Amino acid sequence: MKTETDIVSRVLSGETRAIARLMSKVEGRPDDSADMMAAIYAKTGRAHVIGLTGVPGSGKSTLVHVIAKELRRQGKSVGIVAIDPSSPYSGGAILGDRVRMSDLSTDEGVFIRSLATRGALGGLARAALDTADILDAAGFDVILIETVGVGQDEVDIAESAETVLVVSAPGLGDDVQAIKAGVLEIADIHVVSKCDKDESSRTVADLKSMLKLGSAVRDRFGWDVPVLRTSAETHLGISELVETLEKHRLHLAESGEHSVRKKKILSKRIIKTAEDMLRQRLGQGEELDAAVSEVMSGQTSPRRAAETLLRDL
Amino acid sequence: MKTETDIVSRVLSGETRAIARLMSKVEGRPDDSADMMAAIYAKTGRAHVIGLTGVPGSGKSTLVHVIAKELRRQGKSVGIVAIDPSSPYSGGAILGDRVRMSDLSTDEGVFIRSLATRGALGGLARAALDTADILDAAGFDVILIETVGVGQDEVDIAESAETVLVVSAPGLGDDVQAIKAGVLEIADIHVVSKCDKDESSRTVADLKSMLKLGSAVRDRFGWDVPVLRTSAETHLGISELVETLEKHRLHLAESGEHSVRKKKILSKRIIKTAEDMLRQRLGQGEELDAAVSEVMSGQTSPRRAAETLLRDL
Repeated sequence: MKTETDIVSRVLSGETRAIARLMSKVEGRPDDSADMMAAIYAKTGRAHVIGLTGVPGSGKSTLVHVIAKELRRQGKSVGIVAIDPSSPYSGGAILGDRVRMSDLSTDEGVFIRSLATRGALGGLARAALDTADILDAAGFDVILIETVGVGQDEVDIAESAETVLVVSAPGLGDDVQAIKAGVLEIADIHVVSKCDKDESSRTVADLKSMLKLGSAVRDRFGWDVPVLRTSAETHLGISELVETLEKHRLHLAESGEHSVRKKKILSKRIIKTAEDMLRQRLGQGEELDAAVSEVMSGQTSPRRAAETLLRDL
Repeated sequence: MKTETDIVSRVLSGETRAIARLMSKVEGRPDDSADMMAAIYAKTGRAHVIGLTGVPGSGKSTLVHVIAKELRRQGKSVGIVAIDPSSPYSGGAILGDRVRMSDLSTDEGVFIRSLATRGALGGLARAALDTADILDAAGFDVILIETVGVGQDEVDIAESAETVLVVSAPGLGDDVQAIKAGVLEIADIHVVSKCDKDESSRTVADLKSMLKLGSAVRDRFGWDVPVLRTSAETHLGISELVETLEKHRLHLAESGEHSVRKKKILSKRIIKTAEDMLRQRLGQGEELDAAVSEVMSGQTSPRRAAETLLRDL
């Protein structure tokens, strides 16, 4: 317990090695870190947590990079939580996007953490939000959580942020665009990347007409979801984007949406965490094996077996 | 209860309207259908259940279509469970792929069911597997479960089948290929679609070299994972593919892999179902709201709140 208090206070004073150590604990053995994370959680709420998502090829990693640089230029410290698609078997991260971040990684005002998706037993959402909490408590001003905008888990994670940014690129294929549809509606701010390209006007127009059609979808307390044109190449629109992020945060606070949204986010987070715990307990005990055998031998159905397990917990 | 027994027996005799009705019940109010689904489950195990997955743009819907037609030509009846990406808010299915199935939908030997992904509270995996069970019990010879190969839930569903087929198309972008990596390893059979295109040889070669490198990843009891070239356009390789599906089924039975795999699938399914139930219960009661308020007021952390909820269940 002595060491635990020590790690927590070192995290709170922003010590890089302690931050990395606690993050590893949180990913690997969440049960062991519950006390520490409760102490950390009590110190969160100061950072602006931004979720950034987009389909493969939308240029979201590059955008995270330039946003982080712009924030640094303004003297703000930045935490980045990047979620990589990865194999359910090998467990390793696959995309090489992180490499592009390398010129940020030597900057003390930036902390980058990549999380690999871990298959069904991992609790990715919990790990991602715990990681963001650690960065928040450690004093980072802005935290960017980057996820690929496909799959419910990934969308859920992006949506757990105060401000949700959805990135679209001009000229992606129809199939990719269709998948994207599920994610468009969660945006507080739409960003069209690669606006040095001609086709970008079309993408901007498409997004705007979609927003008109679906305006009643989510109550945003009077916030008009903007569609911003950016180019990481020419730096087009990047400082406007960072300004808009700040404006959205003010809007949340002033409109009263902040606490409404926080309640929703927390309720989802608590449910997800309880699910994780359930999964871990079932995975450890012998009850699950017994249940499987009963279903295999025709004595019960999968759903009845699940009911019994939950009841006997 | 009278009506329930009636619906079940009508499903077992293959009556289309009863099948559709039970499927709707199972999707909408799973708790009300637990008894019926236990009776249905007891009658499953005859059909060959095939999971088919691939990234957006891989041509998997078209492939499902031509496989179904080939199976029909051989006199086999076919059930199709198609999982559509959709909005977490509107809840509606978005892809127009199902339209292409229209010439199958007038065939009495084919039953097509589309499931929309429903956001975090939906229990998509449970609904998909229940739907497949209904088709199995109703006497369909082959059941094809089609999911997009991104997102853990979708990959899990495909992997719940006896035979897993992963579709790759030549010439997709790097980002899409990277996402695909997570799904390649679950394949019992690799299918390269659109092999009327020149670039397809490259895709076949890539898959083969990947298989050589990763051969130890999953114990397949001596099954050599084949890479099959197909074209829906020219019908290239379609009958070979259907033959290979049958061969894989025989392999599962003869090698003893079938029961090993079934145990794994069931154990995942029971855990998922228990999670669904937990989520539903937490979503209904007042305990969750109380827990959220406690976290909001700083009395506890999300994880501690989840622990308490799970303990007091």
